Amino acid sequence: MSQDAEGRTVAELAALFGGRAVKGGDAVVRRVSSIEAAGAGDLAFVEDEKLFGAAGACRASCVIVPEGAAGKLEGFGGAVVEAARPKLAFALAAEVLHPPRRMEGHVHPTAAVAEGAQLGEGVYVGAGASVGEGARLGSGTQVHSNCVVGRGVNVGRDCVLRPNVVLYEGVTLGDRVVLHAGVVVGADGFGYVRDAEGVYHKFPQVGAVVIEDDVEVGANSCIDRGALGTTRVGRGSKIDNLVQVGHNVQIGPHCILVGQTGLAGSCRLGTGVVLGGQTAVRDHVRIGDGAMAAARSAIAEDVDPNTIVSGMPALPHRQSLREQAALRRLPDVVVQLRKLQERVEELENAKR
Amino acid sequence: MSQDAEGRTVAELAALFGGRAVKGGDAVVRRVSSIEAAGAGDLAFVEDEKLFGAAGACRASCVIVPEGAAGKLEGFGGAVVEAARPKLAFALAAEVLHPPRRMEGHVHPTAAVAEGAQLGEGVYVGAGASVGEGARLGSGTQVHSNCVVGRGVNVGRDCVLRPNVVLYEGVTLGDRVVLHAGVVVGADGFGYVRDAEGVYHKFPQVGAVVIEDDVEVGANSCIDRGALGTTRVGRGSKIDNLVQVGHNVQIGPHCILVGQTGLAGSCRLGTGVVLGGQTAVRDHVRIGDGAMAAARSAIAEDVDPNTIVSGMPALPHRQSLREQAALRRLPDVVVQLRKLQERVEELENAKR
Amino acid sequence: MSQDAEGRTVAELAALFGGRAVKGGDAVVRRVSSIEAAGAGDLAFVEDEKLFGAAGACRASCVIVPEGAAGKLEGFGGAVVEAARPKLAFALAAEVLHPPRRMEGHVHPTAAVAEGAQLGEGVYVGAGASVGEGARLGSGTQVHSNCVVGRGVNVGRDCVLRPNVVLYEGVTLGDRVVLHAGVVVGADGFGYVRDAEGVYHKFPQVGAVVIEDDVEVGANSCIDRGALGTTRVGRGSKIDNLVQVGHNVQIGPHCILVGQTGLAGSCRLGTGVVLGGQTAVRDHVRIGDGAMAAARSAIAEDVDPNTIVSGMPALPHRQSLREQAALRRLPDVVVQLRKLQERVEELENAKR
Repeated sequence: MSQDAEGRTVAELAALFGGRAVKGGDAVVRRVSSIEAAGAGDLAFVEDEKLFGAAGACRASCVIVPEGAAGKLEGFGGAVVEAARPKLAFALAAEVLHPPRRMEGHVHPTAAVAEGAQLGEGVYVGAGASVGEGARLGSGTQVHSNCVVGRGVNVGRDCVLRPNVVLYEGVTLGDRVVLHAGVVVGADGFGYVRDAEGVYHKFPQVGAVVIEDDVEVGANSCIDRGALGTTRVGRGSKIDNLVQVGHNVQIGPHCILVGQTGLAGSCRLGTGVVLGGQTAVRDHVRIGDGAMAAARSAIAEDVDPNTIVSGMPALPHRQSLREQAALRRLPDVVVQLRKLQERVEELENAKR
Repeated sequence: MSQDAEGRTVAELAALFGGRAVKGGDAVVRRVSSIEAAGAGDLAFVEDEKLFGAAGACRASCVIVPEGAAGKLEGFGGAVVEAARPKLAFALAAEVLHPPRRMEGHVHPTAAVAEGAQLGEGVYVGAGASVGEGARLGSGTQVHSNCVVGRGVNVGRDCVLRPNVVLYEGVTLGDRVVLHAGVVVGADGFGYVRDAEGVYHKFPQVGAVVIEDDVEVGANSCIDRGALGTTRVGRGSKIDNLVQVGHNVQIGPHCILVGQTGLAGSCRLGTGVVLGGQTAVRDHVRIGDGAMAAARSAIAEDVDPNTIVSGMPALPHRQSLREQAALRRLPDVVVQLRKLQERVEELENAKR
Repeated sequence: MSQDAEGRTVAELAALFGGRAVKGGDAVVRRVSSIEAAGAGDLAFVEDEKLFGAAGACRASCVIVPEGAAGKLEGFGGAVVEAARPKLAFALAAEVLHPPRRMEGHVHPTAAVAEGAQLGEGVYVGAGASVGEGARLGSGTQVHSNCVVGRGVNVGRDCVLRPNVVLYEGVTLGDRVVLHAGVVVGADGFGYVRDAEGVYHKFPQVGAVVIEDDVEVGANSCIDRGALGTTRVGRGSKIDNLVQVGHNVQIGPHCILVGQTGLAGSCRLGTGVVLGGQTAVRDHVRIGDGAMAAARSAIAEDVDPNTIVSGMPALPHRQSLREQAALRRLPDVVVQLRKLQERVEELENAKR
């Protein structure tokens, strides 16, 4: 959610995302909307040719269309902007129209900020939040209500910690990191050593966590600290809700982890890896740059760069599809095989 | 958990759930119990004929039995009520014997309630809770310790927000909604647009969430706000722990989502849909009224009303069972096929 | 995380874990480290013969090696200890070098401790935490910031509740229990009874939860209270992040539940059961002592003691592997079968 928009001219926005205002460059838009719900003051977009009709009939003040498509919005009376990638243009415009809400720099009287903590300019600390000894919060950072920032935590500039986020001791966040409500960073990894009596002793979990710039993490996700080393989430990576990132995991930049995915200890993701929802990755597995996994994949072996995998266990996606297709025929295969056995038996009997 | 029960006569309770007190209508019961643990003052039930013996020997003050079965509790000395559906009767009786604990209307001195917030009669706000500007809490609603209710949130009457619940800005709850500890409603949905450099830009997540009357949501579950539209959970639906509901999802009334299930963006569930634990539903999939999915289903395509699906990918349950049965035989099929190939080869050789 | 280590002599530590200081018994170590990152004052270990070279070249002040292997650390200048199980020895040494941080006994002025609550000696209650009426906290227990301890909760000695943990009313914890941030214990189990109109009525969830000594539970995991009976986690069991434990589940001692696992209601795990990540267990299933399940298993039937299962549905691991291997060949089986059918047809035609 964001502040009430101030409003921008269509021409300003078009310049921002490199579009061309075909008509109505002076019109002012105040917020983004879907084609269906749009009204006066709204910016909408259309990318799919099948929706041009609906877009033409909509009531938005401005619609972003693909290059060369301005003429196809029949009957549309508002402003029209052409852009190479309308959805991307719309997202970039939304960043300006709906900037993250700025909270006035302020420490709520019920917050508990340790004496040694260092707060940059304009830092917001909400009601009931705690900031531990030696913690540093960069300028413009927001720590919402009931967050707990542990001792020695280092948070960069313009980060947003939504309510009830917990950062254990010594965690490091870069700039513009967004953590949604209930995220836990730096809890102990899950490592034990079993003794001869079957009793488990904790393997030390005394490492670090580093979350780089521009990472966003969804509600109630957990990122464990390293055992002896460091768990790292690369810049620009986006993590959905209820995701588990085990100790010593290395996530490269610009990765996408969809909801309820779990990464076991020490696995490594390259740059731009995309994992569908509820994916599981075995410990120590390496996933190459640009690789993708379909939802619910169970990745037990290394994945080559720029490949797509799916299934349980995860296989190259084409192989997985072939096996699925064959599996659909398996009950019939069983029947066919039996019949064939009978026919062969008959042939054999005839021969005797 | 609930308050200490006041006690009701067996006759009162029988009237409540439409049962017939066969004997002991004046007896008083104070709480519900299992057959095994029941003692004086306890109400128990038995539905399964195999357990009639145990029920007869139990020490409850009253047992609810199926219609016509009162005579079968041999040796039982307490009150007996007959009901068409004993378990349902027991649940209805429990609602009276163990009403949700009423908290006295009260704002704890450590709570932070914004000046503009409107609190109905008898509202309880626990220690350390925050209620934002413009938020409205209906009469009788309980906001337990350390909950965070965002700006402009609208909560109905007699809702219960257990500790550490977070409602982001603008969320709407109906009446009698129960949210267990750690639930997050209204966090940003997971939507990004990738640019030519592989950098992800946030697609606007500025929509709404509406949770209708009588919904209950389990601990640490997450319900994201709509991107441009609204995420909706229909009245009477029940959601278990650690469930993920993506942006723009539409859940109809009286649905059941068992633990760790995940619904990707924009999927739609009709009325009375039941999804077993750890189910996954792909984005934009529609599931018809009364459909059911077995635990761990991976639903990638629309599901017809009143059908049962299972498996990964989810198939009609019978087909899924058939494939599973065939799969159990697959190693043998491979062997049989090889043998058959040899026999055919022999026949072919003999022919030459 | 833990306090700054005080430092111990190698001889002291060797005595602790039953090792033999081959050289440098007087050396002092202050913390644990990996072979790669170790420096002066660090204790490291090596178990795998392939890493002896790296260990020899490392800069740790002391390395623990397998029995009889001290001579194999070529060129190593620090102290060397031999132990039967170096990793276990290292874990035991770490317990001494990195003891859980002791918080000074203290109730933060912003905490809300009910008048009737009983706090043992040296209890720590952090900022914004709540402790309800009749709750008891054993001596040395730490309740970190923004935890909520419900009415009548009974917590043993030397427990650690990390921030934002919620214990519902009446929950019981043994001694030395560690609950990581966001854990919820005692929320209502998921049980409803459907009436003739399709409306769900809550089955009473008024039972208890008992967590025995030395249990550790990972961040944002949920352990529900019993419906009528008790949910129990046996002593020494370790539960990872985002795990769901349903009502009335019985977990024996020394079990391991890896991340995102879900146990449906009333299932029973014996002693020393190990469940891999994202495993699901159907309600009422029994898993015998010492049984293990591979990650992502879907356990729908009872599992015998000391067996290994895997897959969906979970099968004995060997059978599961055999089926997987056969499945890899299935697309080829379909093709081979078709060819064989043609060959048989030809033979049949020749015969006529």
